[in-house]
Amino acid sequence: MTVRFKGKAPSRRAFLKGTLASTAGMVAGAGAASAATPDPLITQKQEWAMGLGDGVDATPYGLPIQYEGDVIRRNVEWLTADTISSINFSPIHALDGTITPQGCAFERHHSGAIDLKKEDYRLMINGMVDQELVFSYEDLERFPRVNKTFFLECAANTGMEWAGAQLNGAQFTHGMIHNMEYTGVSLRTLLEEAGVKPEGKWVYVEGADASSNGRSIPIEKALDDCIIAFKANGEALRKEHGYPARLVVPGWEGNMWVKWIRRIEITDQAIESREETSKYTDTLEDGTSRKWTWVMDAKSVVTSPSPQSPIKHGHGPLVITGLAWSGRGAITRVDVSKDGGKTWETARLANPGQPMALTRFYLDTQWAGEEMLLQSRAVDETGYVQPTKAMLRETRGENSIYHNNCIQTWWVKADGEAENVEVS
Amino acid sequence: MTVRFKGKAPSRRAFLKGTLASTAGMVAGAGAASAATPDPLITQKQEWAMGLGDGVDATPYGLPIQYEGDVIRRNVEWLTADTISSINFSPIHALDGTITPQGCAFERHHSGAIDLKKEDYRLMINGMVDQELVFSYEDLERFPRVNKTFFLECAANTGMEWAGAQLNGAQFTHGMIHNMEYTGVSLRTLLEEAGVKPEGKWVYVEGADASSNGRSIPIEKALDDCIIAFKANGEALRKEHGYPARLVVPGWEGNMWVKWIRRIEITDQAIESREETSKYTDTLEDGTSRKWTWVMDAKSVVTSPSPQSPIKHGHGPLVITGLAWSGRGAITRVDVSKDGGKTWETARLANPGQPMALTRFYLDTQWAGEEMLLQSRAVDETGYVQPTKAMLRETRGENSIYHNNCIQTWWVKADGEAENVEVS
Repeated sequence: MTVRFKGKAPSRRAFLKGTLASTAGMVAGAGAASAATPDPLITQKQEWAMGLGDGVDATPYGLPIQYEGDVIRRNVEWLTADTISSINFSPIHALDGTITPQGCAFERHHSGAIDLKKEDYRLMINGMVDQELVFSYEDLERFPRVNKTFFLECAANTGMEWAGAQLNGAQFTHGMIHNMEYTGVSLRTLLEEAGVKPEGKWVYVEGADASSNGRSIPIEKALDDCIIAFKANGEALRKEHGYPARLVVPGWEGNMWVKWIRRIEITDQAIESREETSKYTDTLEDGTSRKWTWVMDAKSVVTSPSPQSPIKHGHGPLVITGLAWSGRGAITRVDVSKDGGKTWETARLANPGQPMALTRFYLDTQWAGEEMLLQSRAVDETGYVQPTKAMLRETRGENSIYHNNCIQTWWVKADGEAENVEVS
Repeated sequence: MTVRFKGKAPSRRAFLKGTLASTAGMVAGAGAASAATPDPLITQKQEWAMGLGDGVDATPYGLPIQYEGDVIRRNVEWLTADTISSINFSPIHALDGTITPQGCAFERHHSGAIDLKKEDYRLMINGMVDQELVFSYEDLERFPRVNKTFFLECAANTGMEWAGAQLNGAQFTHGMIHNMEYTGVSLRTLLEEAGVKPEGKWVYVEGADASSNGRSIPIEKALDDCIIAFKANGEALRKEHGYPARLVVPGWEGNMWVKWIRRIEITDQAIESREETSKYTDTLEDGTSRKWTWVMDAKSVVTSPSPQSPIKHGHGPLVITGLAWSGRGAITRVDVSKDGGKTWETARLANPGQPMALTRFYLDTQWAGEEMLLQSRAVDETGYVQPTKAMLRETRGENSIYHNNCIQTWWVKADGEAENVEVS
């Protein structure tokens, strides 16, 4: 496969001259206009410019326009026994930038999304503290607040790929993720209010839903950057994201970000709950499992082109874009390969990487219809480089579920369609 | 009026001991628990923990939970002749952080929000260019993209206040604003594609709606930081924000951020359109008007407590919060006064100010039920200090509409309710 973009890219105007003439047309007076077919849109009556649109009373709370009706969360029926314990994947193939709107942000429940009013909400801190406390929602609002943007990634994101290329689309292979600006109270503030005793080495956090989804977190992390969040992207958390309050555990697996958080018990050891023994452990090549692999290692994926976002335009300029993230800090570099990892080009980061938040990357390139084996490879501020699937399988085998941060490959064909494949 | 917070704030635990006992209760075993009334929520059956919640199929695209049904855009009937030329204000009194969700982000139209499909969308660049061009939506997606977060403020925001304290609520006095992460193509990129001739000194931009809402912009600004945006907060622009593409003019008045942008004409002088002569000019004290006051000067407002967000909890810890912004760069400091501007305390910025984007500030303080005349005062990186209303009136009089960036005053009463007032 030939790698394009070896030298200076052809002028984009050359591309426009070549392709726009037949689709949109040059306007009168332009040099190349004599060859252009008149644009039917310019000669026809444009109804949107001939009348009045909607008044502001139409949308007290707006939704996406009807033409974006496919940009929604989707689940995969065979993945779980029931929708109350299932996954709704973010449509990352159709998004850009870094913020995930709450309306289409990944959700996963263990016993369904519960309906919990602010006035019924309580948060208890108990166990090894000087003063056990119960906070109402209103109490939480009286403590100093923090604002931070973080990604949440489910430990099972990309988990189906351990056994080989399976689901055909970035939404399904990498969509158990979202990135929001959180507002809330530092967990440290609340723990200091209660006073953690010297023997308190862990916190056990649980939610108000029937599953309770209890998890143990080392006290060092609890006192570092965790947040009891009540707002995301400026407004109240959505029901499916833990309204009225959830735990934010920056950089760590999503299952620990307990929703509808109701209790924080300070203990001297981990609880070893169901969620940290039978689940959220990593099966290894030798058949044993390892637990407490909380941090989400550096990872990336090309979101477009991808199976759900094929190249529909002609040859010439092509924007390759995707997302990168790391639970260990900021993304410092993303490389893109068009030939399955043989050669790499360094992508452009839209903005400098932020710690434990999604980073958008772009490769502005040219495409002449050649097949591509598209990959992206993230590097974070610790120097960690995203591994290949083969490298991960050496220790992890093929029977794991969690923590698959391997390099993803999309096979882009001559017609612009893309498919999830493995390269060896 | 006494200014509180003169020394070290009382321990928040002392506050919790004093007030939680009667509302939420201390848990068993705690030192103060003997005096606590058992929390009915802890002894009653909690239905949300006893059954299953919603499955993920319930919300392919989610909306806020029913209990947040009042956090919506609102219009003011008497402001305009018809809703198609009216304003829907952001509920900033109920938001936190800095991102404004699209669903409740301020909208203003001149002839209603139009329905324009991507396949019908065209953007023309004509006039003093080497090559006039027409882009389809798909063409725009083939150019290198940028991602930036900016505030948009309507020039008329706070405009009703020229004549005195009027509308009672931050949503109505300051809600013609939103702050989003935009993805799109730099306008400079497109202008360079067309090739601006040396005599081209202005661009005239117009939208595809019936009003066309044409505005002239100096070529220096057009080549600086303007964006043809197609996504906001990660997803497609909403219909009411200009789907499928709008102009972003960082720091400049919202009317110039033309929605459904269809044409950019390069000219040697300003067009002097209706929108820049009969509207969007500033009436002065002497009865004359000045035009081309494009930049939105530094401004801030306390969003809570405020008339729509009264203090409902008891005395003790209180979080005062608000927003600050400047069209000339980053916010560097916000001061808060509780006594109508006699004395000031420096607020805490949630994060370092970003150029031409909303900045969230907090003042973590104590309240013992005293009346307050709450104000906030923004300072930007140029050293500009937000003025009082009296200072603005010296040159502008009381008959202006636009560009009122005065310091706002909320009178907080002993019962925690707040009212829009003026101080002299």
